[in-house]
Amino acid sequence: MTIVTTNPFDGDKLHEECGVFGIFGSPDAAALTALGLHALQHRGQEAAGIVSFDGEHFHPHRAIGLVGEIFGDAGTIARLPGAAAIGHNRYATTGETAIRNIQPLYADFAFGGLALGHNGNLTNARELRRMLVENGSLFQSTTDTEVFQHLIANASGARLLDRLVQALRQVEGAYSLVALSRRKVIGARDPLGVRPLVLGRLQDAWILTSETCALDIIGAQFVRDIEAGEIVIIDKDGVHSHKPYPQVRQRPCIFEYIYFARPDSTLAGLNVYESRKCVGAELARESHVPVDAVIPVPDSGVPAAIGYANETGVPFELGLIRNHYVGRTFIEPSDEIRHLGVRLKHNANSAPLAGKKVVLVDDSIVRGTTSRKIVEMVRNAGALSVHMRISSPPTAHSCFYGVNTPSQQELLAHQHDVDGMAREIGVDSLAFISIDGLYRAMGQSKRNMASPQFCDACFTGDYPTRLTDKDGGNAQAQLSLLVTPA
Amino acid sequence: MTIVTTNPFDGDKLHEECGVFGIFGSPDAAALTALGLHALQHRGQEAAGIVSFDGEHFHPHRAIGLVGEIFGDAGTIARLPGAAAIGHNRYATTGETAIRNIQPLYADFAFGGLALGHNGNLTNARELRRMLVENGSLFQSTTDTEVFQHLIANASGARLLDRLVQALRQVEGAYSLVALSRRKVIGARDPLGVRPLVLGRLQDAWILTSETCALDIIGAQFVRDIEAGEIVIIDKDGVHSHKPYPQVRQRPCIFEYIYFARPDSTLAGLNVYESRKCVGAELARESHVPVDAVIPVPDSGVPAAIGYANETGVPFELGLIRNHYVGRTFIEPSDEIRHLGVRLKHNANSAPLAGKKVVLVDDSIVRGTTSRKIVEMVRNAGALSVHMRISSPPTAHSCFYGVNTPSQQELLAHQHDVDGMAREIGVDSLAFISIDGLYRAMGQSKRNMASPQFCDACFTGDYPTRLTDKDGGNAQAQLSLLVTPA
Amino acid sequence: MTIVTTNPFDGDKLHEECGVFGIFGSPDAAALTALGLHALQHRGQEAAGIVSFDGEHFHPHRAIGLVGEIFGDAGTIARLPGAAAIGHNRYATTGETAIRNIQPLYADFAFGGLALGHNGNLTNARELRRMLVENGSLFQSTTDTEVFQHLIANASGARLLDRLVQALRQVEGAYSLVALSRRKVIGARDPLGVRPLVLGRLQDAWILTSETCALDIIGAQFVRDIEAGEIVIIDKDGVHSHKPYPQVRQRPCIFEYIYFARPDSTLAGLNVYESRKCVGAELARESHVPVDAVIPVPDSGVPAAIGYANETGVPFELGLIRNHYVGRTFIEPSDEIRHLGVRLKHNANSAPLAGKKVVLVDDSIVRGTTSRKIVEMVRNAGALSVHMRISSPPTAHSCFYGVNTPSQQELLAHQHDVDGMAREIGVDSLAFISIDGLYRAMGQSKRNMASPQFCDACFTGDYPTRLTDKDGGNAQAQLSLLVTPA
Amino acid sequence: MTIVTTNPFDGDKLHEECGVFGIFGSPDAAALTALGLHALQHRGQEAAGIVSFDGEHFHPHRAIGLVGEIFGDAGTIARLPGAAAIGHNRYATTGETAIRNIQPLYADFAFGGLALGHNGNLTNARELRRMLVENGSLFQSTTDTEVFQHLIANASGARLLDRLVQALRQVEGAYSLVALSRRKVIGARDPLGVRPLVLGRLQDAWILTSETCALDIIGAQFVRDIEAGEIVIIDKDGVHSHKPYPQVRQRPCIFEYIYFARPDSTLAGLNVYESRKCVGAELARESHVPVDAVIPVPDSGVPAAIGYANETGVPFELGLIRNHYVGRTFIEPSDEIRHLGVRLKHNANSAPLAGKKVVLVDDSIVRGTTSRKIVEMVRNAGALSVHMRISSPPTAHSCFYGVNTPSQQELLAHQHDVDGMAREIGVDSLAFISIDGLYRAMGQSKRNMASPQFCDACFTGDYPTRLTDKDGGNAQAQLSLLVTPA
Repeated sequence: MTIVTTNPFDGDKLHEECGVFGIFGSPDAAALTALGLHALQHRGQEAAGIVSFDGEHFHPHRAIGLVGEIFGDAGTIARLPGAAAIGHNRYATTGETAIRNIQPLYADFAFGGLALGHNGNLTNARELRRMLVENGSLFQSTTDTEVFQHLIANASGARLLDRLVQALRQVEGAYSLVALSRRKVIGARDPLGVRPLVLGRLQDAWILTSETCALDIIGAQFVRDIEAGEIVIIDKDGVHSHKPYPQVRQRPCIFEYIYFARPDSTLAGLNVYESRKCVGAELARESHVPVDAVIPVPDSGVPAAIGYANETGVPFELGLIRNHYVGRTFIEPSDEIRHLGVRLKHNANSAPLAGKKVVLVDDSIVRGTTSRKIVEMVRNAGALSVHMRISSPPTAHSCFYGVNTPSQQELLAHQHDVDGMAREIGVDSLAFISIDGLYRAMGQSKRNMASPQFCDACFTGDYPTRLTDKDGGNAQAQLSLLVTPA
Repeated sequence: MTIVTTNPFDGDKLHEECGVFGIFGSPDAAALTALGLHALQHRGQEAAGIVSFDGEHFHPHRAIGLVGEIFGDAGTIARLPGAAAIGHNRYATTGETAIRNIQPLYADFAFGGLALGHNGNLTNARELRRMLVENGSLFQSTTDTEVFQHLIANASGARLLDRLVQALRQVEGAYSLVALSRRKVIGARDPLGVRPLVLGRLQDAWILTSETCALDIIGAQFVRDIEAGEIVIIDKDGVHSHKPYPQVRQRPCIFEYIYFARPDSTLAGLNVYESRKCVGAELARESHVPVDAVIPVPDSGVPAAIGYANETGVPFELGLIRNHYVGRTFIEPSDEIRHLGVRLKHNANSAPLAGKKVVLVDDSIVRGTTSRKIVEMVRNAGALSVHMRISSPPTAHSCFYGVNTPSQQELLAHQHDVDGMAREIGVDSLAFISIDGLYRAMGQSKRNMASPQFCDACFTGDYPTRLTDKDGGNAQAQLSLLVTPA
Repeated sequence: MTIVTTNPFDGDKLHEECGVFGIFGSPDAAALTALGLHALQHRGQEAAGIVSFDGEHFHPHRAIGLVGEIFGDAGTIARLPGAAAIGHNRYATTGETAIRNIQPLYADFAFGGLALGHNGNLTNARELRRMLVENGSLFQSTTDTEVFQHLIANASGARLLDRLVQALRQVEGAYSLVALSRRKVIGARDPLGVRPLVLGRLQDAWILTSETCALDIIGAQFVRDIEAGEIVIIDKDGVHSHKPYPQVRQRPCIFEYIYFARPDSTLAGLNVYESRKCVGAELARESHVPVDAVIPVPDSGVPAAIGYANETGVPFELGLIRNHYVGRTFIEPSDEIRHLGVRLKHNANSAPLAGKKVVLVDDSIVRGTTSRKIVEMVRNAGALSVHMRISSPPTAHSCFYGVNTPSQQELLAHQHDVDGMAREIGVDSLAFISIDGLYRAMGQSKRNMASPQFCDACFTGDYPTRLTDKDGGNAQAQLSLLVTPA
Repeated sequence: MTIVTTNPFDGDKLHEECGVFGIFGSPDAAALTALGLHALQHRGQEAAGIVSFDGEHFHPHRAIGLVGEIFGDAGTIARLPGAAAIGHNRYATTGETAIRNIQPLYADFAFGGLALGHNGNLTNARELRRMLVENGSLFQSTTDTEVFQHLIANASGARLLDRLVQALRQVEGAYSLVALSRRKVIGARDPLGVRPLVLGRLQDAWILTSETCALDIIGAQFVRDIEAGEIVIIDKDGVHSHKPYPQVRQRPCIFEYIYFARPDSTLAGLNVYESRKCVGAELARESHVPVDAVIPVPDSGVPAAIGYANETGVPFELGLIRNHYVGRTFIEPSDEIRHLGVRLKHNANSAPLAGKKVVLVDDSIVRGTTSRKIVEMVRNAGALSVHMRISSPPTAHSCFYGVNTPSQQELLAHQHDVDGMAREIGVDSLAFISIDGLYRAMGQSKRNMASPQFCDACFTGDYPTRLTDKDGGNAQAQLSLLVTPA
């Protein structure tokens, strides 16, 4: 008898690691931050934290759990007073030591206190950490966020901005960070703008957050995306923009549109739900076969399936039902019934499947384990033939920019070509959208090979930054996901 | 600053109170019961319990929380050994005293131990309790389930079946019960069959449970529905059926098809998902207006919206996005932002709404509070006109058969006619499916007024049983929902 | 590696099972009850409960833990309003099922609610329970207290007093009970008065409790002992005494004076501390040997050691130091260091031991395991010779009146004569006070063999009541200590 | 109605802050450390931690609570593998932020990991912290222990010993520290040896700990005291001693003998219990008055009272009984019964008090609040006259060496002369032992005014080190007791 951990969403998906939120100028700063983090829960379900500043003291609260569990009880918000706050959701592991890794991190600097959290991953964090420790810095966590802290502490200059720019010049990788000092809320996005960060406004308050859905939940207005390479400083005089780096073409993560972001968010002017429908329609144009029903793999496959069904005229049907109560653990009582596992999350709905030819629409295939079980379930429910269509190209490369990917060896697309993948998951046919099809669906004529419009490294292996740690021999783990023994 | 409790699904919905599961003849009885209860989680989210029997001892575990929280940790299942078990999900209130009300209840009788749980509500439970207490019975809980126990304890006869029949003859109302004795698992359904109960088989084991989805999750086969008024006794010799009452026409609850049951369940031969699509189609035929998009109110409005969209050819669009992380409590930080509450659960997705005429499809209107906020949200997102179509007739009467309904005075359909309701929720037009339209969608030519095919009392006020407690002056509360001070 | 449960005081002692407290007529009824239970903590350390009545509702709170842990947090007392309350400390086992056994128990009767708790044990509880179950009573706990409840429920008469007298006529054994109805607080003591119960007064309030130390803690005045066989009913008109049974000579438990009661309590006119000193002096007169120091085994041996030292003129010295932080569990990490266990509680203090002849004074020897380790420890600290003197006669018989005794087979005094016991625990000499010496120390000329002045069954085997359950074959367990599997 | 926090021992006592334990070379290192910390529980009751090293990884566990609560459950010790470990008990405040302050602290240094805990207080910790932060060090806790860490991180040299010596040269104040690196357990005592530290041996393992009672509990042999100013390094080659500072006369804290240390410990060759008896005897010689009984204020006054009684021939009697179940909080229900508070801990035992002239023997008077209540209680119990004798000189000055003292203004001895103090606490006479009497009891002819043999600053104001932080304006708080808002 063993216990199997099932992630709230899916153990066989890539996972965004983090969501961030910051607000300056509202008497309800912490409450609004909690609401914003709740809207960003899909970006990190295992821990969350808020630090507020009340004009005199910083107030932190960090815990393992969902935002509603951590910040929903009476009094917690009351213990986070002040008109400025930042917050962070984290995809993290459990256990005593992990508590030290929950962001925002806080430290006392010579210039005063500073809290800091980010979404992304530094690809030279281990190298920087090694150098800092040699220099006498003591690390308390295993997050790359603490690398930012020590770089700032060791930078020179009285102004926080000067120190921050010095620190950011030393890092490589992807980051969308928010910080809170005694007088300011600060946002910064890496030079390529891999991870999203937007600016919003609610009455007199300014907001920085990962997605527009975190503005919607509190009724705030979207103002603009923070630009790639931009640092914004928000204080009582308003929003100040700084662009200390040479400008390069931005390359936002294309997987945000395919799976990570919430469908009701709009990033860089593109609505996520509409993008997914366009991808579904393009996918249909590339690879449709005659079937009786289009079945989404819920929940993430639904928008692409709607686009696919609209494009083809084939009925859209709920042939798979998802149980929304799946939590972190569930028991799997013996080998004999171990194969039941997948039905904890999904059940085939026989009525629209029996005696039908169907196409299943999903967003990606990672290890393929879930896909295989779903296909078997659909066949058992009486489907005559099962075709699978995927609204992304094959995921053949690991991500090093703040996404929890299995090692490359575990990726089904690394092990097999498309025909081999089809055999592995047991479908009658399998097709992925093409890279150029994906770019077309995103409103581009095609992928600009010389200067790609998006980061698509997980499909192409074309990484837009140096991978110092990986090339130094630390291929498997991103520092931001590590747990240290002490 | 106040805390608002939000139910996992919706504070403005009717709530099924319970789900039941029983299994006889499997070495994994408790584990399979936990999985079955997990599949029935939508029937009761606040507490759950399992009692197993290992041939010598009964083993109980009952707690407040979701099934995965209560039964997912290592060792809990191991402490529930045996080849027979029953389980129960409960929609209950929190607090110390409520723990005593979590089912299955267990007691030592003269004939041995018996555990018992049911789904439904006895309409003469208070009257029976009063009589039993006068006779020297001591009640430990406030559930009507304990009424069953004392009636059995005070019945005569050495055979449990004889005692059970005596007990059931005294009760009025709706019940689908499962019980576990040293040698048997027992199921019983009230003479009208208001609440569902089905029989399944997994290898050598027999299963009794509320819905077929609890069979699917463990890979069990559906055998048949337990009939109205039937008692089944499962022991080592198989399944024995008893029908001790005069046969009357069954009247299963029609709201199970509209909202309570899971879409992938099949009850009395009707698939719930297909029924909902048929209702949506019928609703479209009765009351369609020209619009640009059909928008389901997620999640329960989705199947009817698909039926509606298919019938009319209007595109089905996800104009409302639901946050699946909403838990039991969330903070509402001040009066000023109190109106944000509803966005905890739903957000309008502007892209498919802006500049469009839309019809929203929902399953019911109870108090109307949620509907009003959703309509406002859709208008704010830019919809030109908003029409609402409801896949049930107006809910104008309370349920006394195991559903948590507000008092009749709080029901919007009790306060207003349809035009008044439309004004209250702020739509351009509002329509409900007609009673006969609903029966047509369920495969009947129309409602048989002399002998209706379903229990539809919440729409018609035509209650199929005596309401002894209500008519005796206890209108508001069903005993099964009470909390007593000690 | 194993975990060893160590009782707060000593796993090798007899344990009083319970303490009771009741108060009528104070606005702070629950708070004063909590304080009283705290003073009685030595009578039961593992669970406690209070039920209050506020003129309209009964309010219960019961939990596992120490009184200060259960009733010390903000708000708990506030949720127990009213001018009347009763409380109970319990020596109980842990686990889910035990919660149902924590007293006071409460039930709704035909005449209204009644809460009830007692100290003692019924020696025919199993037999009564069997009869009640056959008659249709459903038991929810495994306490003998619930037997009282069902007897009262099945008694006739409108007056609670009549029902209570009927119930008490059917029980055998020892009990000092307190009960709370809507209008009264009631106390009752068995016809022999085995367990103590006293009446006190604080301003306008009346108090019933096990020992006078629970009056002292709240500044209440001692009024009188409740008499053996007396029932007192306290209501707004004052204290009413009833003596429904034929009077017999009382036989209070003599072990209360030797070990159970707190030294600052006075029972039946005898101060416990002074009694223990007298026993120590008598012990010295009976069996002194020349030594250099008198060493108490802390804490219970201290008063007798003072009496012994005063009588002999030998210096009283703290040769054993007790760690007062010992809690319920502590780890014993491996076989190799398992023998360390006893030092968790006691450490030999070498300075007053090294090179000395010493006498150790303890109150009793149960299994002898602790005595053996203490003697070894004292020798290792350099004592030249070690003599042990015990302030009670050999404990050769089990108690069936509410004390947790090992089975007779485990008692060292059942296995060996005094010489054998001396060898087992490794002392140079061992002596117990004689039965008549003990009675002399208690102010009697000697034990009245025909009609003993005390219950001394654990020394003499002369049980003052019938032992129906034991003689029926249930020798080992007292019902009040049982845990049932469901 | 308010909640009052009562310290396990006494809110009106000085509190030792910490106990330390380290072990090298035992397969049961963590289990033995837990046992040692349990024996040192009196030195810090509110939090504890252990860090072990298993040859590859460091394993920490730190929590709020008693040692038995933190380390007594199954599995906790198993998660602390390795043959070397250090542990720490702390007198700390509660709350989220305090968790970061629980020792041992751990950090990764350029030379590897190091865990560190100490007993004492640095009198220039704030000044050092300020300088370190200016230099780019980030502090995560508010303990002075972290100052040690950063000093070591910023020291030069590859050898840990060199770095440690550099660090220790910069600190002022009192410390007895233990540290754990990958290859060593290290102990260090400040140049004056204010706080105790002893070396012991158990089979092949070496042990460093605060008191000998922590050796006794695990059956280890006492080897010697660590000398003032000594650094010992224990590795696989044995114990290496280093004395890097110029030698000065040691001045151990005299209050360890009067109150802090356990009576069964021996420090610098003096047994604590015997020392206390000598102080009691000297006190009697200085200030005896004719009385009928000598009454100790339990538990700390007992040894001095024995010495006093032996010296005078007056009977030693338990006139005050202490409730050993007093925990951290207890409710005080209303103003009217607030004066009950003190009886939570002590109760007067009337039998040996009524009609008697008594002397109460206590170890110290801090604020005087408890003394006043005890005197009143003794008078209420019928004592004819009440004299108090204190086994220390008046406590007129704060301690800055790791003891939690009230500010000087709150000390009764700062506000009043002895006659005034007698009036305040309501006794017939009051006397303290003289400074020279105390030194005589400790085996000295008298206090050496030029070079005192002990630190007695709390009596004399003669502080043996600079008080940099205090003189810099931070008089009130020792850094080791601080809690920061973030």
